[in-house]
Amino acid sequence: MNHNRNKTIVGKALPNIPWEDKLEGCRDAVWRYSSNPIVPRDLLSTSNSIFNSAVVPFGDGFAGVFRCDDKARHMDIYAGRSKDGITWEIDEERIQWVCDDPEIGQWGYGYDPRVCWLEDRYYVTWCNAYAGWPTIGVGYTYDFETFYQLENAFLPCNRNGVLFPRKINGKYAMLSRPSDRGHTSFGDIYYSESPDMCHWGRHRIVMATTSGWQSTKIGTGPTPIETTEGWLLIYHGVLTSCNGFVYSAGVALLDLDRPWKVMYRTVPYIISPQESYELTGDTPNVVFPCAALCDAATGRIAIYYGAADTVTCLAFAQVDELIGFVKSNSRA
Amino acid sequence: MNHNRNKTIVGKALPNIPWEDKLEGCRDAVWRYSSNPIVPRDLLSTSNSIFNSAVVPFGDGFAGVFRCDDKARHMDIYAGRSKDGITWEIDEERIQWVCDDPEIGQWGYGYDPRVCWLEDRYYVTWCNAYAGWPTIGVGYTYDFETFYQLENAFLPCNRNGVLFPRKINGKYAMLSRPSDRGHTSFGDIYYSESPDMCHWGRHRIVMATTSGWQSTKIGTGPTPIETTEGWLLIYHGVLTSCNGFVYSAGVALLDLDRPWKVMYRTVPYIISPQESYELTGDTPNVVFPCAALCDAATGRIAIYYGAADTVTCLAFAQVDELIGFVKSNSRA
Amino acid sequence: MNHNRNKTIVGKALPNIPWEDKLEGCRDAVWRYSSNPIVPRDLLSTSNSIFNSAVVPFGDGFAGVFRCDDKARHMDIYAGRSKDGITWEIDEERIQWVCDDPEIGQWGYGYDPRVCWLEDRYYVTWCNAYAGWPTIGVGYTYDFETFYQLENAFLPCNRNGVLFPRKINGKYAMLSRPSDRGHTSFGDIYYSESPDMCHWGRHRIVMATTSGWQSTKIGTGPTPIETTEGWLLIYHGVLTSCNGFVYSAGVALLDLDRPWKVMYRTVPYIISPQESYELTGDTPNVVFPCAALCDAATGRIAIYYGAADTVTCLAFAQVDELIGFVKSNSRA
Amino acid sequence: MNHNRNKTIVGKALPNIPWEDKLEGCRDAVWRYSSNPIVPRDLLSTSNSIFNSAVVPFGDGFAGVFRCDDKARHMDIYAGRSKDGITWEIDEERIQWVCDDPEIGQWGYGYDPRVCWLEDRYYVTWCNAYAGWPTIGVGYTYDFETFYQLENAFLPCNRNGVLFPRKINGKYAMLSRPSDRGHTSFGDIYYSESPDMCHWGRHRIVMATTSGWQSTKIGTGPTPIETTEGWLLIYHGVLTSCNGFVYSAGVALLDLDRPWKVMYRTVPYIISPQESYELTGDTPNVVFPCAALCDAATGRIAIYYGAADTVTCLAFAQVDELIGFVKSNSRA
Amino acid sequence: MNHNRNKTIVGKALPNIPWEDKLEGCRDAVWRYSSNPIVPRDLLSTSNSIFNSAVVPFGDGFAGVFRCDDKARHMDIYAGRSKDGITWEIDEERIQWVCDDPEIGQWGYGYDPRVCWLEDRYYVTWCNAYAGWPTIGVGYTYDFETFYQLENAFLPCNRNGVLFPRKINGKYAMLSRPSDRGHTSFGDIYYSESPDMCHWGRHRIVMATTSGWQSTKIGTGPTPIETTEGWLLIYHGVLTSCNGFVYSAGVALLDLDRPWKVMYRTVPYIISPQESYELTGDTPNVVFPCAALCDAATGRIAIYYGAADTVTCLAFAQVDELIGFVKSNSRA
Amino acid sequence: MNHNRNKTIVGKALPNIPWEDKLEGCRDAVWRYSSNPIVPRDLLSTSNSIFNSAVVPFGDGFAGVFRCDDKARHMDIYAGRSKDGITWEIDEERIQWVCDDPEIGQWGYGYDPRVCWLEDRYYVTWCNAYAGWPTIGVGYTYDFETFYQLENAFLPCNRNGVLFPRKINGKYAMLSRPSDRGHTSFGDIYYSESPDMCHWGRHRIVMATTSGWQSTKIGTGPTPIETTEGWLLIYHGVLTSCNGFVYSAGVALLDLDRPWKVMYRTVPYIISPQESYELTGDTPNVVFPCAALCDAATGRIAIYYGAADTVTCLAFAQVDELIGFVKSNSRA
Repeated sequence: MNHNRNKTIVGKALPNIPWEDKLEGCRDAVWRYSSNPIVPRDLLSTSNSIFNSAVVPFGDGFAGVFRCDDKARHMDIYAGRSKDGITWEIDEERIQWVCDDPEIGQWGYGYDPRVCWLEDRYYVTWCNAYAGWPTIGVGYTYDFETFYQLENAFLPCNRNGVLFPRKINGKYAMLSRPSDRGHTSFGDIYYSESPDMCHWGRHRIVMATTSGWQSTKIGTGPTPIETTEGWLLIYHGVLTSCNGFVYSAGVALLDLDRPWKVMYRTVPYIISPQESYELTGDTPNVVFPCAALCDAATGRIAIYYGAADTVTCLAFAQVDELIGFVKSNSRA
Repeated sequence: MNHNRNKTIVGKALPNIPWEDKLEGCRDAVWRYSSNPIVPRDLLSTSNSIFNSAVVPFGDGFAGVFRCDDKARHMDIYAGRSKDGITWEIDEERIQWVCDDPEIGQWGYGYDPRVCWLEDRYYVTWCNAYAGWPTIGVGYTYDFETFYQLENAFLPCNRNGVLFPRKINGKYAMLSRPSDRGHTSFGDIYYSESPDMCHWGRHRIVMATTSGWQSTKIGTGPTPIETTEGWLLIYHGVLTSCNGFVYSAGVALLDLDRPWKVMYRTVPYIISPQESYELTGDTPNVVFPCAALCDAATGRIAIYYGAADTVTCLAFAQVDELIGFVKSNSRA
Repeated sequence: MNHNRNKTIVGKALPNIPWEDKLEGCRDAVWRYSSNPIVPRDLLSTSNSIFNSAVVPFGDGFAGVFRCDDKARHMDIYAGRSKDGITWEIDEERIQWVCDDPEIGQWGYGYDPRVCWLEDRYYVTWCNAYAGWPTIGVGYTYDFETFYQLENAFLPCNRNGVLFPRKINGKYAMLSRPSDRGHTSFGDIYYSESPDMCHWGRHRIVMATTSGWQSTKIGTGPTPIETTEGWLLIYHGVLTSCNGFVYSAGVALLDLDRPWKVMYRTVPYIISPQESYELTGDTPNVVFPCAALCDAATGRIAIYYGAADTVTCLAFAQVDELIGFVKSNSRA
Repeated sequence: MNHNRNKTIVGKALPNIPWEDKLEGCRDAVWRYSSNPIVPRDLLSTSNSIFNSAVVPFGDGFAGVFRCDDKARHMDIYAGRSKDGITWEIDEERIQWVCDDPEIGQWGYGYDPRVCWLEDRYYVTWCNAYAGWPTIGVGYTYDFETFYQLENAFLPCNRNGVLFPRKINGKYAMLSRPSDRGHTSFGDIYYSESPDMCHWGRHRIVMATTSGWQSTKIGTGPTPIETTEGWLLIYHGVLTSCNGFVYSAGVALLDLDRPWKVMYRTVPYIISPQESYELTGDTPNVVFPCAALCDAATGRIAIYYGAADTVTCLAFAQVDELIGFVKSNSRA
Repeated sequence: MNHNRNKTIVGKALPNIPWEDKLEGCRDAVWRYSSNPIVPRDLLSTSNSIFNSAVVPFGDGFAGVFRCDDKARHMDIYAGRSKDGITWEIDEERIQWVCDDPEIGQWGYGYDPRVCWLEDRYYVTWCNAYAGWPTIGVGYTYDFETFYQLENAFLPCNRNGVLFPRKINGKYAMLSRPSDRGHTSFGDIYYSESPDMCHWGRHRIVMATTSGWQSTKIGTGPTPIETTEGWLLIYHGVLTSCNGFVYSAGVALLDLDRPWKVMYRTVPYIISPQESYELTGDTPNVVFPCAALCDAATGRIAIYYGAADTVTCLAFAQVDELIGFVKSNSRA
Repeated sequence: MNHNRNKTIVGKALPNIPWEDKLEGCRDAVWRYSSNPIVPRDLLSTSNSIFNSAVVPFGDGFAGVFRCDDKARHMDIYAGRSKDGITWEIDEERIQWVCDDPEIGQWGYGYDPRVCWLEDRYYVTWCNAYAGWPTIGVGYTYDFETFYQLENAFLPCNRNGVLFPRKINGKYAMLSRPSDRGHTSFGDIYYSESPDMCHWGRHRIVMATTSGWQSTKIGTGPTPIETTEGWLLIYHGVLTSCNGFVYSAGVALLDLDRPWKVMYRTVPYIISPQESYELTGDTPNVVFPCAALCDAATGRIAIYYGAADTVTCLAFAQVDELIGFVKSNSRA
């Protein structure tokens, strides 16, 4: 296997990563897949929308956990599989969690999942109802067939809990965005540690909102990508226009050993709602990345993002170009 | 005349009901007309938008009352006529009500009309300004030429007043949704009775908001359709996203003799904003049914709905399939 | 019995009306009882507060219906009796309504009662929970022992429903203030008629908010007092300061035959929160009249009002002086 | 040079004014350019959007000041030049103001510029950050190369400051819309005078909001056009739907000598969001005119407007038709 | 006459300044008058409250302009006179302004007046309704009998306009607090200049809100006091508790020649609502200084402040102690 | 030493507990100290208010941590000492925390402290600023001289973190109320565990809001008191009146081994704002208990509570009576 030929991404080669070259003349560091959306809203017979979903390499293909809201607009998460990372089959039944404690295992709703290969299994984190309010659910699977649920990481309300793909300083590490009960109008990214994936502490502020596209709230997107330059963090930011929230995405580089220290952070966004499938849908003006595949051999990155809270899309970047972009577009 | 060949709809045959068969592969109980919208926003020289309107069989064709907002964005209701229920001619002048009491007859604005054949005439109910605020206006016509205005049914504020097409237990019966003065963020459906179409009482709650697409407010759509299974009620529901209201529609079956008793009610919506003419316009993300034609001979139902508060559209259903859908998709 | 010696109040003499002369030098048309409050917050062992309550002559003394919030801050109404109208005994148990329809008779909460002698019995109207929301409950008693509940007058939400003490144009007549689900920030007074105390209609606007002390909302206080000059209406008005609502009271004179026509209405208030028991309590800055006793022989009026949503107080006026005040302080 | 051949517009001929004839059958007084938008959102390598911009005749072509928000969603203004008024070249660097006073010259942000030829130079007014909040920045240029900044006209917060193209009664004159710190939900148009372009006073109300499309707030658009019938004022108005603001535009005629006196004002809008580039974008449902070119010889008017806070568009009108429209569509 | 014996206050001696020595043991730089309030709410037969008022030495006594809200809670300003500055006679009729321009002279409401001796007359500034909204009214009197109204200084909305008692750099100078239409939740102090008391410009930020008692908004109180150490500025600040606004007062020292430069500013308040007449009333928890008398001979300062938006009170300070306090309690 | 003579409280005798017998005729389970408040707002020369503070037995007297807001209205916590628990000496300097990590040790503000003897030291928990927002600070002292700060327990925002006085099931246990950034309008009580007083998890809902006095939010008050009947929990609840929040207090009994299981919970409050020092002050209508002393020998409980966010008060209860009260006043 070819580790690190590109040498920037710390990880494995992924030769079958979904990919499309950048169009001639495109000046952007991130570009969209020309056949977006890749997952239509009605892929399931019961689904109203499929978006804000997470995928990982699995076997000789890919697997993932998908947010599929049904036509009651109830939010649930489902397992799915794909050969090429573009065409997906999603189970018709939502994930049924195996859980020791019935109070924790009682299902309310789940949304915006992330999946992270960590040590020996795939961890899933998601926005999970507890006592009726959103917090960070944690579970794992070995095979995307059986899923085991652990304790929720934090007190409600919290959203966008994202694990680091390896322990930091001997502890599990998670980013999250504490929030309130509604369409929260604030939100910063925090870092927390755990010795046992059950108790969390040593909370540290990572990044707060600034201005423009990231002035209302920010939250982590995909699992951070380890690179020789630091943790590459793709995150979303929200601007409040007179007609509501606009969700865009940007990039930051975090210190490898103290990931709560931000070394670089893009002032401009890397992608914002501009295509019709991003501008209109159940929630207009949303791009919301939740996963990224990386090929360490070539430096290719495939970003999965939800569009307009309705469909799932794909965008691409090259790791060195993206790191160059964040370095040269960071506030001095 | 062919009464009840289908036997489910209690009513008359309507052989000239507008109709288009469901497309092969369509899994939905309600499907859109392929030439939507049927009434463009600028059908009148002065109209900004024509939507949330009501039609009935009339003579050998159809007549209706239309909400036409003019380019001042003032809301008024207009009479219209059609041979086929699809191509409409609408009067250039709004309806001029004949009214005994000048205080009631003084016109402020009117919107979201419904029309109901009841006993010997066509009753019109609409959202009517009284003392500057919306309540339920009531009037009638025999010919869609002369319109007579009665007393408003309720105290302001109220919207979506819809009559039953026959007396219930010897009384006139109306559904309505009490509201407040602005873009009301709550709203349940109530039932009220009247001995004389002037005084109303014995108010009963019918349905309250639940969750998902019907979590913010709900309101009656077309005149309830009498079937052998109960009153078939098509209603709208509203979900509040971070970018505003989303209006979808669902179905309920009410007890024939005590229509404030809900026997079945769809957990999923039957139609939600998904087409570009529903997703964009003066109010994005709105489907709002206000009328339905029924052919008792075939069980065909043609639903008229406003899209994006801008245009008027058509969708179709088959009564037995729709009743089957509500029965099998009702909360246990 | 001495009817109408003073000739202004149309009604009976009430020689035992509670009374205290106006203090020398007092320039106000309404003056407070020097021993206010007359009902302390903890008169009942379980009561947190007793206020916004209604009294009438009964037998050789007085009876009333009292709003007693318990220490859970649950709102209920209780019957009470008094020899002198000042010292009260209130039942330890809330009123238990006899009601034919279990859905209407199911008790949620009740507050701000009014009592009105009409034809042959004492009608009670109050703010009554239906389907969880406030509307106008209606009931009656002959003896303040057994209470019979009728249908709610209106759809929720409504508050401050007050009956006229005789039929107007052959119909029962009620004033009310439609509202919303919370601490409503609007509210005008409407008039409605009923042939049968069950169905209500012919709704007419009586008065809307204006400015100053009555700029946010207004609502009827005691049962209107019939006088030779018109219906004397004591009502409350609300001003919104930067620190919340301020409840004051004013007076209007309504046309005897068309009581929705206002002949005079005070620009200044007649009483506003100025005493410590009005300025502080569960809701600071509230005076809220709910009842008035009248002695037709002398023109004396005794006004019962809630103070600070905590205690019950008494104020006095002389009918001719009060009518003179409203006439000379009405907007030209 | 051909002054006033059409005789209605008081000004110069502009033979090279951008123009496209009205389509057969179009009933509107204002019609869109068929190749809208004329300036795409990404004309600059760094631009997120280019809109709400102002152009004037300059040399044998045109020059302008453009609002270009960058991909941080930071708001700045840039100079641009065009041969035909349709195809534009915009500087890659924002305008660098020459300013005597460093406190005033310190740049925060700038947006929604207007340009006005007055006496001997091109004045630029824009929404300018002072102490962090928006007010009316004032500056001038002779050549669209060097720009000189003067004192801000008013205290924050203010937006949409627009100069008259000549002195009125010996004083400079400006229209503006005082506002608050956020997405202001109110706004009327005021008139102010200055002897020296530094101190402003004699403020007069010109127009307040009314109803419908202009019920939430209104603000001046392009520099007023002097005509023999009065100042032709194109302005925007905002309606608040349940899903946010809708920006349309209308026309008024102001008295030539006392421009704070409105002679006529359109009840209907002249243009509202109806095309996809107006309905969707960073802020859906916005048309926002900021400039108009006029050819006194033919009466042609070319209106530049921002669409959806994203792109710049063009619409056309004929002065006599437009004046006729406002006269015949004004509230009696 | 004894100028400047104390040498700190630049001005005249005022031997009859109201005064009461500080109580033994009092640790505060400002202390209350023991007979507060000095003006009761009902001094006028029509007054609901008298507060936020301004006084100056006049003849051998004192004169002032008082905010007297009547019992309609309408806000007006009245002239008053006093021998000792403590016992006041206030006219029963509000000030009738002589004004050249009927549009400006048309009276809506007026409140929170300030009075400033400047050159040869007493200028009055107040919060004045124009077009229905508050801005800074300006007028003058020679004798507190005849009052002449000038142009409003600024566009609405603005409050707390306070003149400097002499020209600064050859121009009239005013402090003000731009605001919005309601109970504004923001507010900083700005400085503006005028050559003619009609046109105003060169606006400069003086102080913005900080934290604690002055976190929501701040505004100037009395006319700034010229001292050898700078302009002594007493100002109010507002904190938003969960139960509304709390108004306290602090002190700043401004540069004599560039008064928009703050040299010192108290971190703690000098007075906050603690007495019952400050804690309860029409608006609980308000102390609001609007005037100060100074005796240059002794350094005594008598501060007039409104309490609870209900009554007028008096507090005292010694200039050197107050300057010492602001210097030693300013943020380093 | 006399352990458990009363046998209900599990703990030590405290013969010098502050105490005053209940007055004859008092029907309440909790009664106020007749000399309230015990700590005036200005005990410190710099203090604006002293309230919401915590005390414990210490040596032969008492020690505590006090919330003292200074006259800037900045919130800090201070150590204090008392011989009798009633007369207190409070340090003039706020607590200076010894902390290993400078990011955690950096002081922003602190308020609403609790003190809990646990194993071998006094733990202090308080509302601590981290990254500008409130969360639960944790520290300890042996002597009330030197204080050591640990990691914050939770992510912001959180308030009212209260430790149990012994480990539960081998873990440290804390109650808290997650909140948002402002005057939070929601709030339930949660239970969390920690193996090391650094990492927290296994979060469980204990109690949610219900209705009446505890309808807006609830939060723990003093350290839970271990009794033979369960953990006796005194907590506050908030009702939202039209004029703001009202803070009262109630009692619950929690399961000894699974303290997130509520066995009993009072429907009525045990104390609510009724005295002038509770009704008026910096925040009107607040009683807020933060500490309780217990004498196991007699069953006496002395409750320390903040009044009106201004002063510190004392109330008393007898443990058996209080447990009887909660048992007989719990929702069936």
